[in-house]
Amino acid sequence: MNDPESGDAPATAAVLVIGDEILSGRTQDTNTRYIAAYLAQIGVDLREARVVPDDEPEIVAALNALRARYTYVFTTGGIGPTHDDITPDAVAKAFGVEIGEDPRAIAMLRERFTEEELNPARRRMARIPRGAELVRNGASKAPGFWIGNVVVMAGVPVIMQSMMDTVGPMLRSGAVIAVETLDAGAIPEGSYAMGLEEIARVHERVSIGSYPRFTAEGIRNQIVLRSRDAAGLAAAREAVRKLLVELAASA
Amino acid sequence: MNDPESGDAPATAAVLVIGDEILSGRTQDTNTRYIAAYLAQIGVDLREARVVPDDEPEIVAALNALRARYTYVFTTGGIGPTHDDITPDAVAKAFGVEIGEDPRAIAMLRERFTEEELNPARRRMARIPRGAELVRNGASKAPGFWIGNVVVMAGVPVIMQSMMDTVGPMLRSGAVIAVETLDAGAIPEGSYAMGLEEIARVHERVSIGSYPRFTAEGIRNQIVLRSRDAAGLAAAREAVRKLLVELAASA
Repeated sequence: MNDPESGDAPATAAVLVIGDEILSGRTQDTNTRYIAAYLAQIGVDLREARVVPDDEPEIVAALNALRARYTYVFTTGGIGPTHDDITPDAVAKAFGVEIGEDPRAIAMLRERFTEEELNPARRRMARIPRGAELVRNGASKAPGFWIGNVVVMAGVPVIMQSMMDTVGPMLRSGAVIAVETLDAGAIPEGSYAMGLEEIARVHERVSIGSYPRFTAEGIRNQIVLRSRDAAGLAAAREAVRKLLVELAASA
Repeated sequence: MNDPESGDAPATAAVLVIGDEILSGRTQDTNTRYIAAYLAQIGVDLREARVVPDDEPEIVAALNALRARYTYVFTTGGIGPTHDDITPDAVAKAFGVEIGEDPRAIAMLRERFTEEELNPARRRMARIPRGAELVRNGASKAPGFWIGNVVVMAGVPVIMQSMMDTVGPMLRSGAVIAVETLDAGAIPEGSYAMGLEEIARVHERVSIGSYPRFTAEGIRNQIVLRSRDAAGLAAAREAVRKLLVELAASA
């Protein structure tokens, strides 16, 4: 990427999902979770996600807010050949650069389409903002791109995933946040909450969350601990384990 | 709700998902889609969704940005009994009101918990910002609440859905956006994109989207038309149908 901030602080990121189909309830977004899990594996902290409609001013405003704030912004959706695919133009506007047909992108499209098939609609997929680098994808050949700290990807999950594989190795990776998950089983959150709060207070470098789930057998809880500090994580994990054993014994 | 804007314009909404577990990739958010589909059915336009971590300044900033802009804001997550449940305090801060134990909420919790079970952690679920109305839920008894134009709900899907059923009838409903979906089958987007753009230009009150899907049989496309104008929608639908028939015949 173009000279992201340096130093020891973890790289941060936001996801910007672009598409009416998510906001109308037609489509379940799964890209955010995929990107979240991908970034977690390379030590980049996903701090925010937004969904906006296929509307240029909305895309521009969200993109400018997010790119000013995080190391990376990953967008999904709106880069296909149809009239509702307006993401590249919105990105160009956000950066204040021109947009036009990119010969490198046309070359990629020629790997899939004959000259006759490469009609004006398909050539639209070669519209790339000035100064952007292309992001190859093996699935459909139509490239994504990155410009500044913004990575622009497709909305179709298999294509987006192919693009993520292309850009992933170029991101500034960092220490991975280690995760420990403890099953509290049927012990109610309200029974362990006070003990857990005390553990969270003592182990302040460990982020501790409690997650209930409704199952056929009733409520089942999990406690998730996350930290870049391995020793702190191990100590907090042991404290939570003891707490749960004590509560199970007294139940 | 507290006197939402009146007039013929459709009510608008945003969803604010609160929770580290979504941004870490641990949990797939499904609440946004549920709320999106629910609102679509009663004619409220969902315009934006955001996911923020369990961090008070982040929650306050997002909430204040969204509540200033949309008729309604629906939050999910962070209202349980554990230390990481900080949404009610963040909402109180965003509105600049006090927060404390609400006797009405305590009464609801007593429907489920004995006096002994109602420990400080569980009483935490009765912390409600001053001036808020409670939102009953049949699943866990711990209430959500609404304050101003903000509806605060649980993150666990079955509990959130119970709360949505409570508040739904009180929302300002409007004309529902009718939806028509046409299967383009294996006709490539690049083949119908130009014709579709022309139809979208002629039928400007109809929102037209094209959605590819990768299946075991290859790419399959759907065209989705959405409008509050029934006659316009029918005309656009017929135009798209003709376009697809022509393309299928010439293939």
